[in-house]
Amino acid sequence: MMILLMKPEATVAEIGAVLKRCRERELKAVPSHGPGRNSVGIIQADQTTDLSDLATLPGVDEITPVSTAFNLVGREFQPEPTIIPVGEAQIGSGEFVVMAGPCSVETPEQIESCAEAVAAGGARILRGGAYKPRSSPYSFQGLGEEGLRIMAKAGRNHGLPIVTEVMHPDLVETVAGYADILQIGARNVQNYALLEAVGQTRRPVFLKRGMMTTIKELLLAAEYILAGGNRQVMLCERGIRTFETATRNTLDIAAVPVIKSMSHLPVIIDPSHAAGYREFVPALAMSALAAGADGIMVEMHPVPEEAYSDGRQSLDFPQFADMMAQLRNVARALGRPMAPARDPEQQMA
Amino acid sequence: MMILLMKPEATVAEIGAVLKRCRERELKAVPSHGPGRNSVGIIQADQTTDLSDLATLPGVDEITPVSTAFNLVGREFQPEPTIIPVGEAQIGSGEFVVMAGPCSVETPEQIESCAEAVAAGGARILRGGAYKPRSSPYSFQGLGEEGLRIMAKAGRNHGLPIVTEVMHPDLVETVAGYADILQIGARNVQNYALLEAVGQTRRPVFLKRGMMTTIKELLLAAEYILAGGNRQVMLCERGIRTFETATRNTLDIAAVPVIKSMSHLPVIIDPSHAAGYREFVPALAMSALAAGADGIMVEMHPVPEEAYSDGRQSLDFPQFADMMAQLRNVARALGRPMAPARDPEQQMA
Amino acid sequence: MMILLMKPEATVAEIGAVLKRCRERELKAVPSHGPGRNSVGIIQADQTTDLSDLATLPGVDEITPVSTAFNLVGREFQPEPTIIPVGEAQIGSGEFVVMAGPCSVETPEQIESCAEAVAAGGARILRGGAYKPRSSPYSFQGLGEEGLRIMAKAGRNHGLPIVTEVMHPDLVETVAGYADILQIGARNVQNYALLEAVGQTRRPVFLKRGMMTTIKELLLAAEYILAGGNRQVMLCERGIRTFETATRNTLDIAAVPVIKSMSHLPVIIDPSHAAGYREFVPALAMSALAAGADGIMVEMHPVPEEAYSDGRQSLDFPQFADMMAQLRNVARALGRPMAPARDPEQQMA
Amino acid sequence: MMILLMKPEATVAEIGAVLKRCRERELKAVPSHGPGRNSVGIIQADQTTDLSDLATLPGVDEITPVSTAFNLVGREFQPEPTIIPVGEAQIGSGEFVVMAGPCSVETPEQIESCAEAVAAGGARILRGGAYKPRSSPYSFQGLGEEGLRIMAKAGRNHGLPIVTEVMHPDLVETVAGYADILQIGARNVQNYALLEAVGQTRRPVFLKRGMMTTIKELLLAAEYILAGGNRQVMLCERGIRTFETATRNTLDIAAVPVIKSMSHLPVIIDPSHAAGYREFVPALAMSALAAGADGIMVEMHPVPEEAYSDGRQSLDFPQFADMMAQLRNVARALGRPMAPARDPEQQMA
Repeated sequence: MMILLMKPEATVAEIGAVLKRCRERELKAVPSHGPGRNSVGIIQADQTTDLSDLATLPGVDEITPVSTAFNLVGREFQPEPTIIPVGEAQIGSGEFVVMAGPCSVETPEQIESCAEAVAAGGARILRGGAYKPRSSPYSFQGLGEEGLRIMAKAGRNHGLPIVTEVMHPDLVETVAGYADILQIGARNVQNYALLEAVGQTRRPVFLKRGMMTTIKELLLAAEYILAGGNRQVMLCERGIRTFETATRNTLDIAAVPVIKSMSHLPVIIDPSHAAGYREFVPALAMSALAAGADGIMVEMHPVPEEAYSDGRQSLDFPQFADMMAQLRNVARALGRPMAPARDPEQQMA
Repeated sequence: MMILLMKPEATVAEIGAVLKRCRERELKAVPSHGPGRNSVGIIQADQTTDLSDLATLPGVDEITPVSTAFNLVGREFQPEPTIIPVGEAQIGSGEFVVMAGPCSVETPEQIESCAEAVAAGGARILRGGAYKPRSSPYSFQGLGEEGLRIMAKAGRNHGLPIVTEVMHPDLVETVAGYADILQIGARNVQNYALLEAVGQTRRPVFLKRGMMTTIKELLLAAEYILAGGNRQVMLCERGIRTFETATRNTLDIAAVPVIKSMSHLPVIIDPSHAAGYREFVPALAMSALAAGADGIMVEMHPVPEEAYSDGRQSLDFPQFADMMAQLRNVARALGRPMAPARDPEQQMA
Repeated sequence: MMILLMKPEATVAEIGAVLKRCRERELKAVPSHGPGRNSVGIIQADQTTDLSDLATLPGVDEITPVSTAFNLVGREFQPEPTIIPVGEAQIGSGEFVVMAGPCSVETPEQIESCAEAVAAGGARILRGGAYKPRSSPYSFQGLGEEGLRIMAKAGRNHGLPIVTEVMHPDLVETVAGYADILQIGARNVQNYALLEAVGQTRRPVFLKRGMMTTIKELLLAAEYILAGGNRQVMLCERGIRTFETATRNTLDIAAVPVIKSMSHLPVIIDPSHAAGYREFVPALAMSALAAGADGIMVEMHPVPEEAYSDGRQSLDFPQFADMMAQLRNVARALGRPMAPARDPEQQMA
Repeated sequence: MMILLMKPEATVAEIGAVLKRCRERELKAVPSHGPGRNSVGIIQADQTTDLSDLATLPGVDEITPVSTAFNLVGREFQPEPTIIPVGEAQIGSGEFVVMAGPCSVETPEQIESCAEAVAAGGARILRGGAYKPRSSPYSFQGLGEEGLRIMAKAGRNHGLPIVTEVMHPDLVETVAGYADILQIGARNVQNYALLEAVGQTRRPVFLKRGMMTTIKELLLAAEYILAGGNRQVMLCERGIRTFETATRNTLDIAAVPVIKSMSHLPVIIDPSHAAGYREFVPALAMSALAAGADGIMVEMHPVPEEAYSDGRQSLDFPQFADMMAQLRNVARALGRPMAPARDPEQQMA
């Protein structure tokens, strides 16, 4: 990729003219708006591509190659962090954002009570699975569109945007009709047909690292989405597969500073799938905050023992409230904004 | 799942009547034809399901539950090996079947010369990628349908069925229009939308284990395909991801006896992706034969250094011919059938 | 193992009588002093051992078997945390204890300047290697006893106890002549001859988890030391070996809550060997504190680029001081004691 | 390291003069006798070392640096394979050598009956553990020197050299008093004190790769032994630790061709510890032979269910005899010598 740097005083019209010329030449171009000055990334061009016509357009300063394997996701292309606004949350801004909810949407009552506890605890976003990827074809596969509907309703009741998984390119449109954030699950991190499909939407994407995906491969998977035109991608570390069996997976907490050094995209930790046992979840959530993650996604359930899936790793409501209080305490010390707990009485009014 | 065992003397009409009753009751049923006697597996039924109407049908002997996590793929459901006829090969029959060809279909000349060397060496099936899954969106992604067309032509010229990867549910029909075997790649082993799509076809499926997939998860992925009605599935071990970097992946050679003990499906080894370096490929191919695999899939190229992808692990033609001779030597000692080398002159006549 | 619980009002003399009877019967016995009441663990006895003579001794309440695989290291044997006093530090008491210093002791000037920075930053203990385990026999192997001598001198100058590795059973006595804590390195975690040798001393032991060691195996390795009679063992997680190569090892941060749930021994994190790159060390150190570790061991060097070993992962002095300030900030929020930074002027006076 | 190549016509006296000069200069030197011509490796010398006095000695041809990380173990230093004669076996010569016996020496009767079956099956060497490394301090730790004595006696009765593990530097002399081959276990592969101790003996060493040791680290561990002066080292791959739990470890069969490409040392496979279940052992043994290993070490027991340790992975005698017959069949096809089965009647005469 080549980066075309605009002059600090370049106008929006001048950038528009650059993009138009690229379209005419069938060069895929992506604008980036930085704090200092704007730039345009020209994908699949390299130093052998004749870009002299672009170099002489008004407002263009200089054209240089990107030197890393990553183009759009790289810090080199965009030094400042990507901030993704979802509801009242500003993901990537420094705020510590909590997404919480049950593994699976089960009943209207279950998701409603979860949404209430999520909002009361000060989490910003409601999670829940309507389409469930399951290793066995005979396991519970989720409620499908009915699940989306009741989760969206519960979210609206409590002012919570929702995040849920999409597993099939053909279902992207359906899921995007209800969900504020589209989740790509760990098993699909290199399902390129699906990455391309969500790249065509303008809905924020929550991309989970696979159990044996390197950080480099995760960034390249995100690159598929950004190359499709969707810049609102957040990356989720949820534990990798190792020889250790005391936990369900091994949380690679170092992924937080490593990804931050390589990419401008927000990083979220999923302590629930990493731990696999609820008693270890709060410690991992705390470590995520301290390591500099932009947020966590955590599983909870009104009666974890009766959950259709992942009950062993789901917090109950008092555990969740307690963890949120601990997180707020440390976030305050770190100077990181975090939504306050809400009075449930007030919330229902 | 419950297994309904037919009496040894039961007629085809009696089995048909059982299947009809299952359809009327909306019980998904799968017939299995064993050497001794036939049976019908009733999926998603268990010991609490009232099957007394079925138990009294003519020809029915007894009804028992399957006790393993695996239903259709398990040895318990079908003790004798699944044999998949493809061209002249009988995959799973004891014959050692070699599938060979380039990583990517590049040009008509390249695939034609590969097909000639594949046939001359005594391999049964031509492999080649037309749609390529690549970690980076900017890498060569394959020739698409044009690649399918020229590979199918090269296969016909040399009497070789072809196997090639399908990456997207929407492309299953297109790929099945050319390919004799549909390959599911390692990255898609838990892409359930794709597994269900190939489960709807009646084309043999070549399912690759993922870098992060346990043997149990691989069998459950195959179960998705069998549950869809497609019984012709072969499983491929192609190396798992470990800490060792001297090879591209770590070939889990023990997967051969382990899978054979659990399942009736054929097992194929891919020594090329496991090794990552051509000099180690023949030793791994030999170990596959000795461990009891039903065959191998191996990459080769007329000029490996110039391959668009995976050149480092592709054999050149003399290396391929030499490996085939070594394999035939050991196959003979083991009493395992293997196709002879063909005289290239004769072949072209 | 059987646990013999003493009555709450049992006297020291009564416990002594129990231990004496065990010695007479050649039953290995270990006393444990709990907050509520005292107990005696009788190793290698089980429910088939006739202990009726012990049961009737004065002060004995009841005798019950220990049900876990771990005996002396387990929470079941000793519910309250083990606290190990070293210098002014109380390791395991809730205090967050920092151990810091260079990978290798190189020169008197180097270790002296490190000790000064360690003390100034508020760390409690000076680390440094005099005998170095190296993968290659041709790498720098350390200064040996001369290194011990100059490190001990630097420690005394700044009021810092020292921790250093012992690699050979025959050297335990020599190292214990200088060191306040004996370190067992990751490669020696299952070197039983060495574990038994340090079990015979009464010097605190710092036991590092191996790259390949499960948490259960680490606890069993510690059990060797405790069974030898040395109860002052702290466990160190320093990264495990996985497929990810962006960091030197993968820090298993979940080991903190997992070990705490199983054992009463203190847990220390080594962020330096886990990260392998100094820029990621502070984030891992912060995650250790937030996850509940009892402390960290961190590498630093006056001029990291010139270090004889591990320079890439060593902090320089300003980075170290900055990290210490961040840690103190969060420790305060968590209510965990941590030594203050010292004024270097004052310190030298 | 520098290699000093002697002229093809150089005399033994001339080599002696070179070695003498090295000693005078305190340069550690190791002679290597190749088929074509002899050479002398000068360890810890490099291109900056002034060797001009050596270059002018009679018989010296030229002096060049070794370019790999490995010195004495590397193919570059010694292109032809190391052959280690033990009893009638020539390990590394092309012969396929089987070492077999129980995990632990338990009783004189047990080891005697094993030795009889080992010899009858055509294995060359008797294995058995007298000092057992055990994860738990409370597990059976072996019979110690008494075990050595009864194993050595059983070996003599059946003309079998013995291999057994040494765990402690102080025990090397004792074990070498009975054993024909000194085994270093997987947990001790980087126990440098122990590697140095066996490097001082002239007894062949059987060095097991650790569960998370890379091939490169294994070669460097062997380098410690060779640098100590003991050139008779064989390397054993026994399975590495991965995420897969269907087998006890994952056999890295590719280690055979990889090590052969890098080193001249013999490579042995241990299918028993790799598999963990006896039903998978023969398939792994066959794969070892086909991949080019120099032999296998396999566990067997008269009554596996009653073994003190590792019973689940031990073959019974009929399984062992059957596996040996299969191996001989394939060895014959490959043109590899292998000892014949012996008539047990004759053997006892």
